[in-house]
Amino acid sequence: MSHQESLTAYIAAFVSELVLSGITDVVVSPGSRSTPMAMVIAEHPDLKLHIHVDERSAAFFALGIAKASNRPVAILCTSGTAAANYYPAIVEAKYARVPLLVFTADRPHELRDVGAPQAIEQLHLYGHHVKWFTEMALPEKSDEMIRYARTVCARAVSIAAKAPAGPVHLNFPFREPLIPKIADDLFQTTERPEGYVKVVNGDIVITDEQFKEIAALLKGKEKGMIVCGHIADKTFGDRVTKLAETLKFPILVDPLSQLRSGIHSQENIIETYDTFLRNDDAKNALKPDIVIRFGAMPVSKALNIFLKENHSALQLVIDGGGGWRDPASLTTNMIYCHEATFCEKLQANVEIQSASSFLNKWKSVNQLTKDHMTMIRDTTQLSEAKLFCQLADMLPEGATLFVGNSMPIRDLDSFFLNNDKSITVMANRGANGIDGTVSTALGAALYSKPLYLVLGDLTFFHDLNGLLAAKLHNIDIQILVINNNGGGIFSFLPQSEHPTHFELLFGTPIDIDFEHAVKMYHGEFTRITDWDHLYSMMKADPPKGLKVIEMVTNREKNTKEHREFWRSVSREISNFVKGDHEWM
Amino acid sequence: MSHQESLTAYIAAFVSELVLSGITDVVVSPGSRSTPMAMVIAEHPDLKLHIHVDERSAAFFALGIAKASNRPVAILCTSGTAAANYYPAIVEAKYARVPLLVFTADRPHELRDVGAPQAIEQLHLYGHHVKWFTEMALPEKSDEMIRYARTVCARAVSIAAKAPAGPVHLNFPFREPLIPKIADDLFQTTERPEGYVKVVNGDIVITDEQFKEIAALLKGKEKGMIVCGHIADKTFGDRVTKLAETLKFPILVDPLSQLRSGIHSQENIIETYDTFLRNDDAKNALKPDIVIRFGAMPVSKALNIFLKENHSALQLVIDGGGGWRDPASLTTNMIYCHEATFCEKLQANVEIQSASSFLNKWKSVNQLTKDHMTMIRDTTQLSEAKLFCQLADMLPEGATLFVGNSMPIRDLDSFFLNNDKSITVMANRGANGIDGTVSTALGAALYSKPLYLVLGDLTFFHDLNGLLAAKLHNIDIQILVINNNGGGIFSFLPQSEHPTHFELLFGTPIDIDFEHAVKMYHGEFTRITDWDHLYSMMKADPPKGLKVIEMVTNREKNTKEHREFWRSVSREISNFVKGDHEWM
Repeated sequence: MSHQESLTAYIAAFVSELVLSGITDVVVSPGSRSTPMAMVIAEHPDLKLHIHVDERSAAFFALGIAKASNRPVAILCTSGTAAANYYPAIVEAKYARVPLLVFTADRPHELRDVGAPQAIEQLHLYGHHVKWFTEMALPEKSDEMIRYARTVCARAVSIAAKAPAGPVHLNFPFREPLIPKIADDLFQTTERPEGYVKVVNGDIVITDEQFKEIAALLKGKEKGMIVCGHIADKTFGDRVTKLAETLKFPILVDPLSQLRSGIHSQENIIETYDTFLRNDDAKNALKPDIVIRFGAMPVSKALNIFLKENHSALQLVIDGGGGWRDPASLTTNMIYCHEATFCEKLQANVEIQSASSFLNKWKSVNQLTKDHMTMIRDTTQLSEAKLFCQLADMLPEGATLFVGNSMPIRDLDSFFLNNDKSITVMANRGANGIDGTVSTALGAALYSKPLYLVLGDLTFFHDLNGLLAAKLHNIDIQILVINNNGGGIFSFLPQSEHPTHFELLFGTPIDIDFEHAVKMYHGEFTRITDWDHLYSMMKADPPKGLKVIEMVTNREKNTKEHREFWRSVSREISNFVKGDHEWM
Repeated sequence: MSHQESLTAYIAAFVSELVLSGITDVVVSPGSRSTPMAMVIAEHPDLKLHIHVDERSAAFFALGIAKASNRPVAILCTSGTAAANYYPAIVEAKYARVPLLVFTADRPHELRDVGAPQAIEQLHLYGHHVKWFTEMALPEKSDEMIRYARTVCARAVSIAAKAPAGPVHLNFPFREPLIPKIADDLFQTTERPEGYVKVVNGDIVITDEQFKEIAALLKGKEKGMIVCGHIADKTFGDRVTKLAETLKFPILVDPLSQLRSGIHSQENIIETYDTFLRNDDAKNALKPDIVIRFGAMPVSKALNIFLKENHSALQLVIDGGGGWRDPASLTTNMIYCHEATFCEKLQANVEIQSASSFLNKWKSVNQLTKDHMTMIRDTTQLSEAKLFCQLADMLPEGATLFVGNSMPIRDLDSFFLNNDKSITVMANRGANGIDGTVSTALGAALYSKPLYLVLGDLTFFHDLNGLLAAKLHNIDIQILVINNNGGGIFSFLPQSEHPTHFELLFGTPIDIDFEHAVKMYHGEFTRITDWDHLYSMMKADPPKGLKVIEMVTNREKNTKEHREFWRSVSREISNFVKGDHEWM
């Protein structure tokens, strides 16, 4: 048996099984050691191969595809530092629970740790940040090793996908010569042609008895609230809103919960809590006895402080992935159960409530805050706050909004209100980095159209290389860069009170004219001058190709505007809560 | 004792000790969790603080400073994926034996693995790729903990610097509030103000007895050769050339050995072996009985194949850092000894040889190959080979030449000839990646002036973000981009014989006009049209600011030119070796 035949048969078996396991997209970075895998992948008619020169961007691009397609995505690179460039996206995938299959090519054993070129220690290269690592055997063509290759492949796909989803790393040692033998029957499989192993991933659910116990906890608790952070499962929104209606609990919806937009019931939705939970009178009036929390930690610091202050309330955390999302150690009951199933089954176990004055209080304060946002909306100057107030109106039906970290996600949280459009909101909230945002959005844009990315100038800069994918793969995306020339978030933090090194260490203005970069990647660049200009740009037909709109703002004015709004709405809320009035 | 006082005293003690341990440069990326360390570093009058937004580039920038300054350099970033972006440069530092101090800020224990924002598992984040990892204690002000902070600092610096030099990782948990108390006496130290611990790093040396044994091995071996790869120690060149003269051995000098330029003896230097060791007649005439090899593995594949073919020769490998640099398992004697000391002491133990016909053969074939390079020099078209032939002539006295990986370093190896200028050659040859090259060169340019970077278009693209440092820190650098629109090296590899997916997977043209990027970073861009144009650009005054010269070449023509040259010189060599002639 020749080396080439073994190499080819083994990899073709692996790649066949990859497709039979449901994988459709592979992001490949050029390199020599990865040649056998890259060439076989390129031959498969059912795989979309996306080439990406910069491995850091490549991995985030794959992350975006996985987020938007709800399927694991494979990435492939050569040996050496190429593989180390995948690390940031792998860490994000781990914490954001996004399935990735990381395939790294490696030198064989005899060329490791002996000064061979591009040979680094790749075993456990990503440490604790992958769900599973395995060092593949050298290619062999025996029936046994073909079964091994197919089995490992199916197993890897299932581990990446099962809750909590995440990255899996397979390291492939390849000996030279690296060229596989490409023939027409490359993917012909005689044994189990429909797939070698079918893996059925179950969900974790609790028993009926346990549901009864939880229902008993809820009994007599009028002052209940539900908190929803990000959950990938699209069936969840409908289920949780039905549960909330039955219980007459307010649902505090993080922008990534996908509950601020869409066709589910909006009766109990509370979305301006990040503003009104800064006010002590509101917080006193809204103290809960019980909190039911789902999904990732919400973005709002005000909400998290409020939950902490109410540590004597029962706090139930429901997690279908088995983590421990509770940075303030508040949980009284940690419940490992698939979230949508939990809502459905709990609903069946509790009594329908007809009304709730507690819910009405939340709704009143929420409505008051929303009404007060005219203060932001009436601004004629370009303003970051107003942008997020107006976004839902500007975006077309069915749009996906990808939001950068740091200020944009916080402003989205504060100012993006409930709406009946079907808008999907995405962000990289696993580790909340500003890295890889452009690439993640571009990857998502392959499956979620039309896609609008809103991000700050430092975040845009950090992944400027990612724009190459837009050019090479003709991706349609509209990018709105909020350019306040530096790190806007620091103006809200205590660091800003220490001016000596503030601009050097935190403000970090980079004074870049992004028009050059956009032109380099053959995109259209527009620096908007006023709101009408922005509306006309945003409300035009969905983007074709790369379109970048820049909105120049000022960090100091921005901080001032936010603070004035919070002060003003806080006064209103205090007057309302303490005043002689009817709650809703 | 307040939290702020503890925080301040602990970090100030650490930073004081950092300076007293000889650290002068810190590269800081903006972030919140790293605030206490960043603010204290910014206050120290003896530290140069370089701010860098993109952590991947930041770490490579620090690597460049460390290479050029011969001192460990510290890098500091916030928690989360920021730290993961350091990984590629850390891996490179490990294998290139460059000292780095990696400081990552982290959430304290109670905020780990519980969904807190920007909190990822940072313990052992870089796995096997750092020489030492330690999780720092939370800041405390007790005398004991101040002693601890100072001791760990001195220890970390010494571990990073001692052979084999490399990266060290300290993870700092910080609790809020994060603002230190900046006062005039911040760095005043009463206990041991001259430095808390002075660490003396010894070198490994073998005994006189062991030297005698090695000298005995050499006795009667006329056909000896010395091979020098990269060694950071600047005293080595003079010592090894003296040893070679005593033994009358040829020295095969990798471009990174620093022995192709400079004022040391050039009597025994052989530099065109990458060309003539492709010829079987030459290889037959030049078979050694003994090989003495120093430093990193040489770039030349032809040389490595030649060494492998001569596996029955004694092959001595001298390594002052204690690694195992021998990918073909050829070593007969692995000698762990400081290299310059080895040369000096061995020289004292061997007899002076008066002449060697074996050396003369090497010199004859080398001279013939050099003479034949007129074939390359006479080209009037823009040519990658000719560029490297002419580089020594074009560069000013005292210049540093930083060379990109993939083709440029190989062409440098083949065509950059012995010269008496003092030119320092640098490259990232730890893991041979194309990543981070721009940033490493920019960091080096702070201490090695004037600096010229020569690299390919994909390498330039991969670290385009690195150019921001040139703009922000007004760094003087001249960059020559060889733009053959893709990965030129693959045209020399077997992949090129399989045209179906060649351009997609390996050629990877990106069709980018880099003029846009250079303008964005306020640099000067020139696309040269002919050789005179290039000479005038390169021979102008050393660069002020960012200057980028682009030379457009063609991958196919380039491969053809190389192959024709190799064939032609090979014919000459065969005629010469087999012919009736006098060796030198």
